[in-house]
Amino acid sequence: MEIVHTLRDLRLRLAGEGLVGLVPTMGSLHEGHLALVREASNHASCVVTSIFVNRLQFGPTEDFDRYPRDLEADTKRLASAGCQVVFAPTESEMYPSPQRYFVEPPALQNELEGAVRPGHFRGVCTVVLKLFHMVQPQVAVFGKKDYQQWTLLKEMVESLALPIRMVPGETIRAEDGLALSSRNAYLSTEERAEAPHLQMALKRLAVAIHAGSATDLNQTIEQESMTLQQRGWHVDYLTVRSQYALAEAKAKDRELVILGAARLGSTRLLDNLECYRLVGPS
Amino acid sequence: MEIVHTLRDLRLRLAGEGLVGLVPTMGSLHEGHLALVREASNHASCVVTSIFVNRLQFGPTEDFDRYPRDLEADTKRLASAGCQVVFAPTESEMYPSPQRYFVEPPALQNELEGAVRPGHFRGVCTVVLKLFHMVQPQVAVFGKKDYQQWTLLKEMVESLALPIRMVPGETIRAEDGLALSSRNAYLSTEERAEAPHLQMALKRLAVAIHAGSATDLNQTIEQESMTLQQRGWHVDYLTVRSQYALAEAKAKDRELVILGAARLGSTRLLDNLECYRLVGPS
Repeated sequence: MEIVHTLRDLRLRLAGEGLVGLVPTMGSLHEGHLALVREASNHASCVVTSIFVNRLQFGPTEDFDRYPRDLEADTKRLASAGCQVVFAPTESEMYPSPQRYFVEPPALQNELEGAVRPGHFRGVCTVVLKLFHMVQPQVAVFGKKDYQQWTLLKEMVESLALPIRMVPGETIRAEDGLALSSRNAYLSTEERAEAPHLQMALKRLAVAIHAGSATDLNQTIEQESMTLQQRGWHVDYLTVRSQYALAEAKAKDRELVILGAARLGSTRLLDNLECYRLVGPS
Repeated sequence: MEIVHTLRDLRLRLAGEGLVGLVPTMGSLHEGHLALVREASNHASCVVTSIFVNRLQFGPTEDFDRYPRDLEADTKRLASAGCQVVFAPTESEMYPSPQRYFVEPPALQNELEGAVRPGHFRGVCTVVLKLFHMVQPQVAVFGKKDYQQWTLLKEMVESLALPIRMVPGETIRAEDGLALSSRNAYLSTEERAEAPHLQMALKRLAVAIHAGSATDLNQTIEQESMTLQQRGWHVDYLTVRSQYALAEAKAKDRELVILGAARLGSTRLLDNLECYRLVGPS
């Protein structure tokens, strides 16, 4: 495995590679990221993992400075997962001058995660487009853990006619069901013990939707939200959307996804669950 | 020379091509475009000319519907200029669904041409980015006739790390000095006879700047603008900018460009002239 820090070295290293797969990350890698790398190696002969904490996608009050960085630990993990190239550009390599051109995504950028993180998805789309231009992969893998990000990036590739196949990676979970996330490291022992209850709420909702027993879906969501709040969570949102572009779920929609974001103390956790409605309300 | 209409056929045709050069156009080709194609063939083994009248860059009151289209005449001209592939996508090939992702260029998009054409450069940057992703050229050629467009696109390529070399094409002129433009076809006989006076004004300004005699540059510009108006022109702007990102020209700047846009009747003509200041004001 090779580690490159500049665009020049990256292009030299990749010249002549047949089928390149890209896994963009912000480092602080856990099993969830490694699963994406393994997925990429199913589709590509050369897997590039980028590690770059992207200032553009952090708001002014967010944790850009305290976001964990440990390149040495990250590269050790990547070597064991079948990664061929680590691209870890410096800030000045990625942004030689202040970024003046942005990808402007559609209105979904201001909903859900975007509602509490203005400009976040604009920053994500812009840096991912730059990484695509730098690496020129044939395949890119993104985790469904960040479902809204996955949805927006998949649609960006289509809408901008990028010659890249987008492959989703399933969410990897701890044994108790908590979705792996770099931010789990911020949880106290008590918070860590409570954390799986977000996924439990999503699962109960999925069962109700699947069985068609949630005739008043909004009421069922409201109940689950209340349950979490009684357990000490601050719920940012808990919602059911269509899997297509995360449009508002209509009665006829069968392929749905339940999305939740809630805080334990100062740590914000995200989770989601795709679910399928067998029968609609009559 | 081959003519392809779909992205699928384009990619099949270009597979294995070593060095691809792209000349994006809206058709209605004249000697100015052919000079860009000849320039591209100096840098590429396979020159692709795209022909697509891009709705995104026209305002609601602009001439999208009456913009001239003649694919047969265009392809004849291209064949004689050393073009290998004409890419002429349909509206639904370029925009299979309404465009939802846009390139948002910097504030220069709202100045000069952008001041009278809101959203124009956003539409230009977005379609050119899509064409870049479709054709994947190593080299792209754009005319300096549309100087602000050239400036914004050149900077877009840098800012988004596109792996493309941008090559400028010089403006081609009629014998009397009028810059060739598809819109010249709209001029009446009298207007056509008057049209070269825009370039004459730019030239007089360039001489004054070069010699350093324009100690009060704004006053000199104002005089030239008045002269044009007395001859029946409606002057949208006449201005001197730095060649770098078209920033406001400062006293220390040596590499300048004079930009003019003015209307004769209902036809809007653009022209520009790069010029060099030997000595600054003391």
